[in-house]
Amino acid sequence: MALQLRSTITSAGRLELSLANVDTPKPGPDEVLVRVEASPINPSDMGLLFGAADMSNAEASGSADNPLVTAAIPEELLQTMAARIDQSLPVGNEGAGIVVAAGSETAAQALMGKTVAIRGGAMYSQYRAIQAEQCLVLHEGTTPAEGASCFVNPLSALGMVETMRLEGHSALVHTAAASNLGQMLQRICSADGVDLVNIVRKPEQVDLLKSIGAHYVCDSSEPTFMSDLIATLAETGATLAFDATGGGRLAGQILTCMEAAANQAAADYSPYGSTTHKQVYIYGGLDRSPTEFNRNFGLAWGIGGWLLTTFLEKVGPEAAEKLRQRVAAEVRTTFAGSYAKEVSLTEALELDNIAVYSKRATGEKYLINPNRDIE
Amino acid sequence: MALQLRSTITSAGRLELSLANVDTPKPGPDEVLVRVEASPINPSDMGLLFGAADMSNAEASGSADNPLVTAAIPEELLQTMAARIDQSLPVGNEGAGIVVAAGSETAAQALMGKTVAIRGGAMYSQYRAIQAEQCLVLHEGTTPAEGASCFVNPLSALGMVETMRLEGHSALVHTAAASNLGQMLQRICSADGVDLVNIVRKPEQVDLLKSIGAHYVCDSSEPTFMSDLIATLAETGATLAFDATGGGRLAGQILTCMEAAANQAAADYSPYGSTTHKQVYIYGGLDRSPTEFNRNFGLAWGIGGWLLTTFLEKVGPEAAEKLRQRVAAEVRTTFAGSYAKEVSLTEALELDNIAVYSKRATGEKYLINPNRDIE
Repeated sequence: MALQLRSTITSAGRLELSLANVDTPKPGPDEVLVRVEASPINPSDMGLLFGAADMSNAEASGSADNPLVTAAIPEELLQTMAARIDQSLPVGNEGAGIVVAAGSETAAQALMGKTVAIRGGAMYSQYRAIQAEQCLVLHEGTTPAEGASCFVNPLSALGMVETMRLEGHSALVHTAAASNLGQMLQRICSADGVDLVNIVRKPEQVDLLKSIGAHYVCDSSEPTFMSDLIATLAETGATLAFDATGGGRLAGQILTCMEAAANQAAADYSPYGSTTHKQVYIYGGLDRSPTEFNRNFGLAWGIGGWLLTTFLEKVGPEAAEKLRQRVAAEVRTTFAGSYAKEVSLTEALELDNIAVYSKRATGEKYLINPNRDIE
Repeated sequence: MALQLRSTITSAGRLELSLANVDTPKPGPDEVLVRVEASPINPSDMGLLFGAADMSNAEASGSADNPLVTAAIPEELLQTMAARIDQSLPVGNEGAGIVVAAGSETAAQALMGKTVAIRGGAMYSQYRAIQAEQCLVLHEGTTPAEGASCFVNPLSALGMVETMRLEGHSALVHTAAASNLGQMLQRICSADGVDLVNIVRKPEQVDLLKSIGAHYVCDSSEPTFMSDLIATLAETGATLAFDATGGGRLAGQILTCMEAAANQAAADYSPYGSTTHKQVYIYGGLDRSPTEFNRNFGLAWGIGGWLLTTFLEKVGPEAAEKLRQRVAAEVRTTFAGSYAKEVSLTEALELDNIAVYSKRATGEKYLINPNRDIE
């Protein structure tokens, strides 16, 4: 038997988080069994974990080793959760651990004892069976904690730079840029010679990014933010942004500033704005308020969702494997992450911890070790 | 000499509308001179005509035959007009009239006396010189008033259907659908066998569209609007919308309903939403308030600007000419427009008239005849 974290939204409008006791999976011939020792709680996990629940009113019940956390779903949002009602869903997009059993095929057997990074859901589990070919073998000496975040952040950061190239842009803008992902993106752009305009919300985040080599950092808490951003966009020519916040006015402000930068270079006035296509992809939802913008940036613009899996499908398996191997090779440098705290599955359901990591704040990311404190 | 309507935004933050007395243009060898007898005031003209001015506070001065209309530009919006400050700009995207003089080349001479539709700006003028090859010769018997709107609305409506095909969608959604453009789009879709979901704001607009053959009309003033729209989207499979309003919550509501319709068909729950790409193009700004949406439609979505000239460049001159010829052939049927009032250039600058046509309301479109009341 093995513990697995579950999230259920009931038809009565309640979120329930609990630990299920499930059979330890048996690997098929082409599969391995991984003892998961590290799995991050990414913002992208929290959509499944919490649904539309308001976690500030969460309540704890159950026992110490069988905890239950419940929280209300605002009634007007319950309909958006219709597709998952009354299903007990496992959570956790990615993780790393040790291969402790393997199927009969050679590729599976070859992984016995290796430390591997894996993705595909249900990682907040003590054990996870997975196809051998899906495992990214970590280099000798890499720990599960170091390799826990090999996919979501590293591949997203690499995918942003690839998307820039594929769609004909020459520089990038990134928001919430002091995040783990943002720091990776800065290191990639420094290595690849790509201009990156970092947008942050606090002076100390400016310092952090500059300390890892960032040239362009704009602080949205400064009164000169808009003019700073226009100047930086004019200098770099960045016409593509990746926005982690989603809500509020930031995406629109970026387009407004891109348009102002484009018009500085334009010869003639056009009532339809510049002909330069300006694009913002929203890949996260740190700001859960509505997105709002004024459309004062002409007609050559787009805002859209960006999803890693859609990007990987578009570029195909060969290109994706190249990106994965770069991650394995640079996991302790370019793609090094940091965590505020490592918790067990039980601790992950303590209200004090939920109150911290559910904020999705920069520098407060948690790492779950599903086998912590378990003999 | 000839009259020409001019719009100026001064560095002091005032809009000035006036009539300039300009030399009657002399056509070059490959050009013709058109006496403009009909030119519509489209929503797309009003961006250039009024800029960011608040026309509810416009003031009239000058004399009866030399009118001057002034209005204040809100200070926070003046910066967005920077590229046109202190320039006296002619206005009017399209029109029709009679060729009264022609250059020496055969193609130009061949047009003498013909009624032609033209586009390219400065149509709120008594006379307009233009290259012969840019003229769309109207069929025998078509009047300038009937041919005044051959480009913006007809080519936009045709462009929407072409865009649907080019981007792999199979049905369309259109807002402010009882407009002149909307009625053309319905007639095109009826003729071409394309499902069109019309969104209107008033019960009488439902009746109007049904009277010209519309199958699907959703009234956003009804309390059942969202569920009506979801049902219609599920039936038609429409995943592409063209939105004339731009502001407010409508674009987001359409994406929300498209996602709900897609999820009705989906087998599994995904926290990232359906994999169906949902797209809204904003091509107008009837609602000048900010655009606002909740992003409760997964990550496979896009919102963007759509501009006719960009579309025509993308499909190339041969495809564009085919569309133009269809317009000339069907200008009294598929592409028939209607106008609330025909006015002279002087009348177009009367405050009473401005108060009506500046509302951009369905059924209140004006037609300017720059040669009306002039001997």
